[in-house]
Amino acid sequence: MTILFQPLHLLASTTETADSSLVLAAVLLSLVVVYFASKLGGELSNRIGLPPVLGELVGGVVVGVSALHLLVFGGDVEASNSLIMQFLTMQGGLSPLSANSVFHAQSEVISVLAELGVIILLFEIGLESNLKDLLSVGLQATVVAFVGVVVPFAAGTAGLMIIFGVSAVPAIFAGAALTATSIGITSRVLSELGRLNSKEGQIILGAAVIDDVLGIIVLAVVASLAKDGAVDVGKVIYLIFSAAGFLVGAIALGNFFNKSFVGVVNILKTRGELILPAFIFAFLMAYFAASIQLEAILGSFAAGLVLEETEKRKELQQQIIPVADILVPIFFVTVGAKTDLSVLNPAIPSNREGLIMAIFLVAVAILGKIVTGFSVFGQEKINRLAIGVGMIPRGEVGLVFLGIGSSVGVLTKPLEAAIIVMVIVTTFLAPPFLRIVFPDSEEATVSSTAENS
Amino acid sequence: MTILFQPLHLLASTTETADSSLVLAAVLLSLVVVYFASKLGGELSNRIGLPPVLGELVGGVVVGVSALHLLVFGGDVEASNSLIMQFLTMQGGLSPLSANSVFHAQSEVISVLAELGVIILLFEIGLESNLKDLLSVGLQATVVAFVGVVVPFAAGTAGLMIIFGVSAVPAIFAGAALTATSIGITSRVLSELGRLNSKEGQIILGAAVIDDVLGIIVLAVVASLAKDGAVDVGKVIYLIFSAAGFLVGAIALGNFFNKSFVGVVNILKTRGELILPAFIFAFLMAYFAASIQLEAILGSFAAGLVLEETEKRKELQQQIIPVADILVPIFFVTVGAKTDLSVLNPAIPSNREGLIMAIFLVAVAILGKIVTGFSVFGQEKINRLAIGVGMIPRGEVGLVFLGIGSSVGVLTKPLEAAIIVMVIVTTFLAPPFLRIVFPDSEEATVSSTAENS
Repeated sequence: MTILFQPLHLLASTTETADSSLVLAAVLLSLVVVYFASKLGGELSNRIGLPPVLGELVGGVVVGVSALHLLVFGGDVEASNSLIMQFLTMQGGLSPLSANSVFHAQSEVISVLAELGVIILLFEIGLESNLKDLLSVGLQATVVAFVGVVVPFAAGTAGLMIIFGVSAVPAIFAGAALTATSIGITSRVLSELGRLNSKEGQIILGAAVIDDVLGIIVLAVVASLAKDGAVDVGKVIYLIFSAAGFLVGAIALGNFFNKSFVGVVNILKTRGELILPAFIFAFLMAYFAASIQLEAILGSFAAGLVLEETEKRKELQQQIIPVADILVPIFFVTVGAKTDLSVLNPAIPSNREGLIMAIFLVAVAILGKIVTGFSVFGQEKINRLAIGVGMIPRGEVGLVFLGIGSSVGVLTKPLEAAIIVMVIVTTFLAPPFLRIVFPDSEEATVSSTAENS
Repeated sequence: MTILFQPLHLLASTTETADSSLVLAAVLLSLVVVYFASKLGGELSNRIGLPPVLGELVGGVVVGVSALHLLVFGGDVEASNSLIMQFLTMQGGLSPLSANSVFHAQSEVISVLAELGVIILLFEIGLESNLKDLLSVGLQATVVAFVGVVVPFAAGTAGLMIIFGVSAVPAIFAGAALTATSIGITSRVLSELGRLNSKEGQIILGAAVIDDVLGIIVLAVVASLAKDGAVDVGKVIYLIFSAAGFLVGAIALGNFFNKSFVGVVNILKTRGELILPAFIFAFLMAYFAASIQLEAILGSFAAGLVLEETEKRKELQQQIIPVADILVPIFFVTVGAKTDLSVLNPAIPSNREGLIMAIFLVAVAILGKIVTGFSVFGQEKINRLAIGVGMIPRGEVGLVFLGIGSSVGVLTKPLEAAIIVMVIVTTFLAPPFLRIVFPDSEEATVSSTAENS
């Protein structure tokens, strides 16, 4: 083998072009693993009556750092931890150094593709949502979001300080991590259940968006607390105004932009005349959202909402499907693959203390969001439990809090493990829970399809 | 601005998550630039009656290293050369070091996306081509490919040695670079002209595939010549057998794989049930091709040919369109953006000698391929000029030769510049030339559509 594949080695060590061909080979194999895991997991999950996205997450865990090590990601990790890299190294006779550089490039590419995946997912969700419907439940969604931030934060922080004797700053950080809601997981499950355009679905979606904005503000507050021991009021005010400005601006822009978008698309005559202008808009909005500290996905969601108002909506929804089909699974499988289940192993001493705190955090995380459903007012026949359950998954947003807390150095190992467990459990429990609280999806599918057409 | 955007800076310097959010921001802005350049260039080119792909290439040049510096690529280049990175640095208060790491990650991601783009392009071309039609002109295509390798190689090498007094090894390298044919450029233009399924189109496509295989062998020969002064016969035999084995194996596999593919797709019930298995197959074939030193695009082309034989063809062709629309332009714009037109500047002394050699190389490059059309036998009413013109563009394949020649250190600066000019001129001239030699596309479009259905 080594002799046969020598040219690959020769190229790798001498030219840049060839090095990039190794990165390409690593990316191609990673994508094959991602697609295989997502399809197998999604289909099996669907067979046993659970949302496919749960299977994609579990498929990711199986191929990821917790089990098969096919799909692992860089950072502190060496290339030798990745089975794909081991395979390529064996094949190409790579040196450990160049294997590491290929590995990190591949990790970076797959991570960015995953982020583009969730940006496209929210763009698609935006295209399927109706701005007027969303605004009509705006007040309820705002109340749900506020309750869903205040209750878990207060209960989590107080409980950690009183029951576990954790000091104030780390307790506040853990409390902040409890406030997050993963729009990605929830919206995908709602879409799969055909409930995105139900009143409950709209409230959950709206609340998740507002929750995201609140989360950014909470994060800025706790980060400045951890750094200086005081809150930077100016920054908080800036964040509140820029976030509100972005959301209001995006909606206002919609009315003006609708017509010019259709006008531009109608004069274009070459391939991609609809999808490329749409992507330019979605990616610009994602960039703007990211540049004012919001999540990029809020930008693409807003772009989807704006374009949903145009006459090109149907056509664009059709064209976005295959693009979402190849990019969105990368996100969910990556979330699973990056999940390190070793924190759940009670044989490791430092995990035990964490696991006990984790039980408390999981309870607060679930109950603290379930109560939000009961804060909905003025709606008689509404599935309050479903709304609360829809807010449960912390997903990637919870991990952002964790990452910042770790980097500032305020979290102890057990508390860090407890937060990871809380994020894992809420993320993986939400899809089956949602399936249970929305028992019969026949009617919902029909009504949401009818609304859409 | 600096104060307002400080949080981005804080995140960037303290956490990995945030650093990746800067890479995402850079990728989003780069994609917006790519899509804008491709759409504007493609539309303008189409308005003046030229193939859109030429406009995409020129659009790439305008935003790339030769002009606006919006889209530039890493390697030896510093982040400060990229306007997008300058903008992000200004916004986020990045240090030069972290700006460089974000810049290189962004370059890597866009480069891989471009390579995925051309892989998807050839997959789509494969899905639109018919294996039987291709095999029926197989002998003619083989002759065209051989003539198109031998004539430019012999004329180029001899001319450089005799007229310009270049020594043997660099002359052979330059001669080898003259043998390449860019399948990407040619197939896209043929597709745009509606001539992909004409007899001429099939011969060009078949010859370009065989040319690619021959090119890999030529490259291995000249690379071992340059390194050891002798040809590694064992390696050449291995390459010939593995390449032939791959092509024959892919075709043979087709008959077996057809049915199992359709069988698998039919039992899948969740989203992406057709496109994900198809992509798994295409990416695996691309990986296999790359791992035996062929180009990855030959693998995806073969995958497309195999799936074209299945009953899922129509549906898959439909689904691939939006995916190709968002990925393929990244390839063409990137090719343009990486093209450094400064070698054409006669004010730089070292360019002058190169420009004179370039005139000779361009003449050999064009005439050496045009004669290939007249080697087609047994076809009475065939557009021989069109076949020759279709083989002209060297594109990315020519640059691979150049990259390896430079890295081995056998090329002088003027000869290197001359090869770059040859690649640029043949790549940019081919689309308008093809438009001219295929004057009336009405009939062709209709007949190719008819053949397809």
